Amino acid sequence: MPKQVAYSSEEIIALISPQRTAGSTTDTIRDIASLGSASPGDLSFLGNPKYKAQVAASRASIVLLPLDYVGEPAANQLFLYVAKPSVSLVVICARIEQQLWPKPTPGVHPTAFIASGAVIDPSATVGPLCVVEEGSVVGARSYLQASVFLGRNARIGADCWVMPGVVIGSECVLRNRVRIQPGAVIGSDGFGYETVNGRHEKVPQIGIVVIEDDVEIGANSTLDRARFSRTVVGEGTKIDNLVQVAHNVIIGKHCIVCAQVAFAGSVTLEDYVVVGGQAAVGGHITIGKGTRIGGQTGLNYNTTPGSYVIGTPAISYMLERRLQILHQRLPDLFKRVEFLEQKTEKTSAPA
Amino acid sequence: MPKQVAYSSEEIIALISPQRTAGSTTDTIRDIASLGSASPGDLSFLGNPKYKAQVAASRASIVLLPLDYVGEPAANQLFLYVAKPSVSLVVICARIEQQLWPKPTPGVHPTAFIASGAVIDPSATVGPLCVVEEGSVVGARSYLQASVFLGRNARIGADCWVMPGVVIGSECVLRNRVRIQPGAVIGSDGFGYETVNGRHEKVPQIGIVVIEDDVEIGANSTLDRARFSRTVVGEGTKIDNLVQVAHNVIIGKHCIVCAQVAFAGSVTLEDYVVVGGQAAVGGHITIGKGTRIGGQTGLNYNTTPGSYVIGTPAISYMLERRLQILHQRLPDLFKRVEFLEQKTEKTSAPA
Amino acid sequence: MPKQVAYSSEEIIALISPQRTAGSTTDTIRDIASLGSASPGDLSFLGNPKYKAQVAASRASIVLLPLDYVGEPAANQLFLYVAKPSVSLVVICARIEQQLWPKPTPGVHPTAFIASGAVIDPSATVGPLCVVEEGSVVGARSYLQASVFLGRNARIGADCWVMPGVVIGSECVLRNRVRIQPGAVIGSDGFGYETVNGRHEKVPQIGIVVIEDDVEIGANSTLDRARFSRTVVGEGTKIDNLVQVAHNVIIGKHCIVCAQVAFAGSVTLEDYVVVGGQAAVGGHITIGKGTRIGGQTGLNYNTTPGSYVIGTPAISYMLERRLQILHQRLPDLFKRVEFLEQKTEKTSAPA
Repeated sequence: MPKQVAYSSEEIIALISPQRTAGSTTDTIRDIASLGSASPGDLSFLGNPKYKAQVAASRASIVLLPLDYVGEPAANQLFLYVAKPSVSLVVICARIEQQLWPKPTPGVHPTAFIASGAVIDPSATVGPLCVVEEGSVVGARSYLQASVFLGRNARIGADCWVMPGVVIGSECVLRNRVRIQPGAVIGSDGFGYETVNGRHEKVPQIGIVVIEDDVEIGANSTLDRARFSRTVVGEGTKIDNLVQVAHNVIIGKHCIVCAQVAFAGSVTLEDYVVVGGQAAVGGHITIGKGTRIGGQTGLNYNTTPGSYVIGTPAISYMLERRLQILHQRLPDLFKRVEFLEQKTEKTSAPA
Repeated sequence: MPKQVAYSSEEIIALISPQRTAGSTTDTIRDIASLGSASPGDLSFLGNPKYKAQVAASRASIVLLPLDYVGEPAANQLFLYVAKPSVSLVVICARIEQQLWPKPTPGVHPTAFIASGAVIDPSATVGPLCVVEEGSVVGARSYLQASVFLGRNARIGADCWVMPGVVIGSECVLRNRVRIQPGAVIGSDGFGYETVNGRHEKVPQIGIVVIEDDVEIGANSTLDRARFSRTVVGEGTKIDNLVQVAHNVIIGKHCIVCAQVAFAGSVTLEDYVVVGGQAAVGGHITIGKGTRIGGQTGLNYNTTPGSYVIGTPAISYMLERRLQILHQRLPDLFKRVEFLEQKTEKTSAPA
Repeated sequence: MPKQVAYSSEEIIALISPQRTAGSTTDTIRDIASLGSASPGDLSFLGNPKYKAQVAASRASIVLLPLDYVGEPAANQLFLYVAKPSVSLVVICARIEQQLWPKPTPGVHPTAFIASGAVIDPSATVGPLCVVEEGSVVGARSYLQASVFLGRNARIGADCWVMPGVVIGSECVLRNRVRIQPGAVIGSDGFGYETVNGRHEKVPQIGIVVIEDDVEIGANSTLDRARFSRTVVGEGTKIDNLVQVAHNVIIGKHCIVCAQVAFAGSVTLEDYVVVGGQAAVGGHITIGKGTRIGGQTGLNYNTTPGSYVIGTPAISYMLERRLQILHQRLPDLFKRVEFLEQKTEKTSAPA
């Protein structure tokens, strides 16, 4: 934890307003740690009941506990009882976050290059060595941190945070409160070719990418612009690192897409879809609302809302689990069939 | 679609020279859309016969149709009959593309850093905040868009387009008409170590990467330089986003490599190989001409020309499909064997 | 090979001190090549006994050979006998590497932006268009090559090499002799949300990433900062390109992680773990010391030290190989069961 983090127990209490407390500590809190690894000066928490047994031996100076926890603090240790320890922890972390990443000062850094005709809101921040091409718009309080590229006529709404090294291509749109992690590429060309006389001729990719409100895109992820029309990431959806979103993909609202997932062209995700890491969805597939796709799955057909699929090729989670068990019993099955063959041989042998 | 796109029906007709027309429209075309999603002001097309039934209900102002299509336009709707609607669409998109991405003005942007001894052709463009190290060469009409890094003695041929944030390492070579999407890395070190006394000692990676004519490399893909000699991407090959090409890989001409594929060291692809997304090929493997590798495949042996393989471990496509069906019938097979066992037990029971 | 590489046979002999020699050559060595592809002017080597038969026909001007090799050089060809040809080759490559990548001149490039309060060691090099934010420290002889971003209070130790386009987030730490390939992101936010009333609320990610001595990180890989506390890469570990390391992952010492691997949150790798390409490890798993994980594996349970696992879901390597063989014999098994059914039908038929 950075050295500027230092809270007294009184400050922590003021921050999260526990329902009751037990014990006390004179330690200054300088870090957060799990129950098992905590040292004096750390704050810890019981977020998952299965770790309850670790509380008694924890060396943390402060422990956040659920209201029903039974036990006594050690010497120089403070217990804080709250409705949901994990939610109280978020409150503390959010406070630390504000200290670590203070609001940037509005304005354009002198080393940034802003083309004439770009419009930067006076409350926005454009950090060092950014490039903002002509016709681009950066909205109120948005923050291009450093070395960000914003192509011609691209539009960034309000309260966005675009981190270092991000590339946002021409004409692409970020609505409000969008957060793009470092190195992500929004608006690379879709992968489309027509093969003519043995050569792959490029199909122009003239569409755009639209990223709706409250979306987060992970580091080094790539979102291709549409062949024409739009590639869309719906409101509230969260995309992890190194994810590939091909041209004309439409991702619904409030989806969760884990790292290294790939969506082929023109895939549609309805709302609240959850996709495990390294899964892939084939072209022109529609994924029904609330579908869960397991990690490393390869999916090539439409799913109905609420499906849970896994495997390559993808099947229902329950069937896949059953098949996995039977698959591991194949050696036994081969032996059983061999045994039956020998027996049948005998039985049917001429007496 | 960007607001500067606006075509009259006369302009569309002049652009694609239809064999015949039916109906007429006074709408200005401002976007392209699929038949089902089109609104007035959109141009649409029948590219795949299976969508034929959607033409009659389409609200597109202009529809591109194959010569054998039978049907009448609606009011204020124009049908244009052409030999191949998808090819005519490419013509229209290419025209729009020229408007969206006009040719850059030749010259070096004042914020770029060009080391002494680098040679930039007077017709080339080096955009804002690029770094061109000593000894590098940028050929005629080539375009380093913005924040591109070109290492010592790297050589870019004619008519290349290197997009924002691309890194091209020392000594690497791009021939002509090469297009590199944002964030790609050409010439990172190969991953080679010798383990000596429990420590992994780096094997110097002193080779280069050579990218031949008319190649396209996707966003955030990584191509490692050779241990010695060359890593090569052959003429006309197209590589999608987030692809890993290890040291000393030799990719043939006119291959297609989809997103998130990985080639381990010293893999050789002959010409016209097609590799599905997330597939991986093990080290020192040779893939025969025209081989097709399915998505998510794990391939660890040489293939003969024209093979079609899929699965992990990879087997022939036809066998894999058959095995998948049998695999899903395992629960039935276990029941049948159990039934046989019970029956055999009875049959062979002492009378 | 770059044109500045040129060695006489005398220079090669002085460099590697062979135990004995045979033949001689007047050629200048300008490249290194495999035995089969070498031409005059190339140096080659017999690193793997299985290529022994290729030595006799090799056109290389110099060949490095093991002491027990029996054979005679061709005209104008020099054989150098050494204890380990691959180790002698490393010596030669390291010498070439010094020429190709000479030590950078210490100092800060005039186009770099260094915030006040950052501390750059006088022997360090900060190349063109780098951004170093306030409170950061760059240690002795370390090299930020070009367009590197170093966030607030980040700390780089001695003798590190951070290549173009790398992003190192606030508060993150690189110890000594760390090498980061282009485009890698160290310290992106971990992927953590609490779903409240149908919306995914961000859990602040306030931890850091610590990269210990002698680590190498591949191009465009992404290492997330911890939710709190640390994400760690242990001493001597080598990570390839496009690898995803989620928040709070602890990687031990001297591990090898191949391209496109993904570790979910809070995974622990003990020392000397080797992970094949495209493998994935599920959250909160501990991988025992020296475990080997095959390529494309999906692993969701703890492993004991020395394990060798493969497949999705992961099982022991030996069992997986056996199951693969039986799986491919399923068509035969179905036939055998069908045959048994017919036979049993007859046998048990009423006479």
